[in-house]
Amino acid sequence: MTARIREFLRTRRPEGPCLVVDLDVVREKYLSFARAMPDTRVFYAVKANPAPDVLSLLADLGSCFDCASIPEIEMALAAGATPDRISFGNTIKKERDVARAHQIGIRLFAVDCEAEVEKIARSAPGARVFCRILSDGADAEWPLSRKFGCDPEMAPAVLEHAHRLGLEAYGVSFHVGSQQRNTEAWDGALASAASIFREMAERGITLKMVNMGGGFPTKYLRQVPEVGAYGQSITSAIRKHFGNRLPETIIEPGRGMVGGAGVIKAEVVLISKKSVKDDVRWVYLDIGKFGGLAETMDEAIRYPILTERDADEKTPCVIAGPTCDSVDVLYEKTPYDLPVSLAIGDEVLIEGTGAYTTTYSAVAFNGFAPLKAYVI
Amino acid sequence: MTARIREFLRTRRPEGPCLVVDLDVVREKYLSFARAMPDTRVFYAVKANPAPDVLSLLADLGSCFDCASIPEIEMALAAGATPDRISFGNTIKKERDVARAHQIGIRLFAVDCEAEVEKIARSAPGARVFCRILSDGADAEWPLSRKFGCDPEMAPAVLEHAHRLGLEAYGVSFHVGSQQRNTEAWDGALASAASIFREMAERGITLKMVNMGGGFPTKYLRQVPEVGAYGQSITSAIRKHFGNRLPETIIEPGRGMVGGAGVIKAEVVLISKKSVKDDVRWVYLDIGKFGGLAETMDEAIRYPILTERDADEKTPCVIAGPTCDSVDVLYEKTPYDLPVSLAIGDEVLIEGTGAYTTTYSAVAFNGFAPLKAYVI
Repeated sequence: MTARIREFLRTRRPEGPCLVVDLDVVREKYLSFARAMPDTRVFYAVKANPAPDVLSLLADLGSCFDCASIPEIEMALAAGATPDRISFGNTIKKERDVARAHQIGIRLFAVDCEAEVEKIARSAPGARVFCRILSDGADAEWPLSRKFGCDPEMAPAVLEHAHRLGLEAYGVSFHVGSQQRNTEAWDGALASAASIFREMAERGITLKMVNMGGGFPTKYLRQVPEVGAYGQSITSAIRKHFGNRLPETIIEPGRGMVGGAGVIKAEVVLISKKSVKDDVRWVYLDIGKFGGLAETMDEAIRYPILTERDADEKTPCVIAGPTCDSVDVLYEKTPYDLPVSLAIGDEVLIEGTGAYTTTYSAVAFNGFAPLKAYVI
Repeated sequence: MTARIREFLRTRRPEGPCLVVDLDVVREKYLSFARAMPDTRVFYAVKANPAPDVLSLLADLGSCFDCASIPEIEMALAAGATPDRISFGNTIKKERDVARAHQIGIRLFAVDCEAEVEKIARSAPGARVFCRILSDGADAEWPLSRKFGCDPEMAPAVLEHAHRLGLEAYGVSFHVGSQQRNTEAWDGALASAASIFREMAERGITLKMVNMGGGFPTKYLRQVPEVGAYGQSITSAIRKHFGNRLPETIIEPGRGMVGGAGVIKAEVVLISKKSVKDDVRWVYLDIGKFGGLAETMDEAIRYPILTERDADEKTPCVIAGPTCDSVDVLYEKTPYDLPVSLAIGDEVLIEGTGAYTTTYSAVAFNGFAPLKAYVI
């Protein structure tokens, strides 16, 4: 929570649930990444929050952009980024989108299999490709599935295929898992990347770049390490595995860049008990899983929730959203302590919601409008 | 799949993933509910699919509407429904929305606790309220959480509170769980409802209506009973529990009304393996959890997927969506058999997708547009 957000909410009093993003926090965060890893280029993961003012600020600061689709590429360009500062980082692309990106001037593409390499060779001839490898995501609060990346043992064949088809086999990427609180987590993946660099060199192909992905955390209820600690740990892991032949490196922070810059203002719609015997109250908010808080799925992310009565005694509550969908429950397996004095109509502030909220909103579920956002 | 949908897709060849809804199927389904339960009013659950043409058709056929929000109420009115044919069926309502509904002329409201009763007494004086009770949802493919409804033992106090505050304590509602394949599942909840009717009569208050909710299934991969079988079973359960003092009854089909009327056309974007040792292919479509298939959450609903190569040998696949989100995987725990000959660029047809797809789409996640829909 920042003074600017508090002041905005106090003076503007926006109607309905909304996200407020403080650009000062985004700027400070970008600068802390730049300071912590001065030799690493930052590719902001646009999907985390593609608000035009966020993208413009980052473009002005010198950020590059990791884009998942043609619309995201167009947003990055509209914000002032040049095509050489954009990576088409989705490993799953329609060939007509590859062609469109190439036409726009994009030259850096992610792949994780030979079929994707072939699309790029046909529709973006000569482009640079990096191969994403699987990483176990140990220690991440939200380990990734096997959806993206191939077994590291398969990567040399994918990259050599690219080389033979006239593409520039440019490097390797990985992702250590979302909300990664262990600053050492990059070590194992960097070891795999270095091993692929050596294997490719033996095949006569010189890789140049390691894309170390995202995973940098937002502070929710638990403390997380500072960006500087990640920088130190990652820098020493790169030196350890690559020696004095340091590759170009890039990172793709999304959550770590904007998560902490946003606060959602919501309202208590109802407080009830299901039975006279129940101890736990049900607290229903005007925002839920389908209104922007999709990342409460499986109660994965536990957002800090502030009320004006936090000095009062607290007791456990189930927290749910406003839709007629029974899965629209935010916290139930582990109830959430809220003040006993909390009342219908009270405002609540949900911190750490700058990333993965607005764009996850359902377009019209139950007739509710998508989450509004104010970038200040 | 209907001939009209096939013909539409063949001649119109819409670009990108889309839902096509056949109104003939919706009409036939409405008529089968009306035939199966001639003394029961149908309140279509608008949230299942609020497409204007669907609502207009149902309004013309004489349907009433179960609405979750003011925008849904406005859509039902725009489709030609009069306010007396609309229920504000969400148990979680802002008081200003209750006031707005009352101003529009809505007179029927759901409640499940005294606090909600008080909002309605203040902002919709004299309205009819029905109290939702918890039901165990046994046998449902997707049992509901405890989010909606109160313990049946608590319902008389809630309804008496309504009566004392000048509202019309009108009845009881329940929901036996989504995709309920057991036609007998209504029996236990009807027994609870009848018991509440008796308890209220002892308190001098005559309830009039039982809202038997939704739960009527769509045919996905497994067979489901016909609507007529539900009608017979429910009608005999009502007679068993209410004897010759039959209450007014309503049902709220949503999925059961429109699920089977829709087919999503999608495209295979990528097919790959994660390792040379893997047997399972990963098949990536241009639609996933955030593009309309939210109900694949926990692999709850297993949609029939048709390809043009279904005569060929099939082997197990993981099926995933196109976004850079690792949870955007549709079927992995139980892989899905698809033809070995399936190729990138192939069209696939996903059946049973008329309900809970378009409105669940993320507004812009990864820059992808929400699911388009054509109602024919």
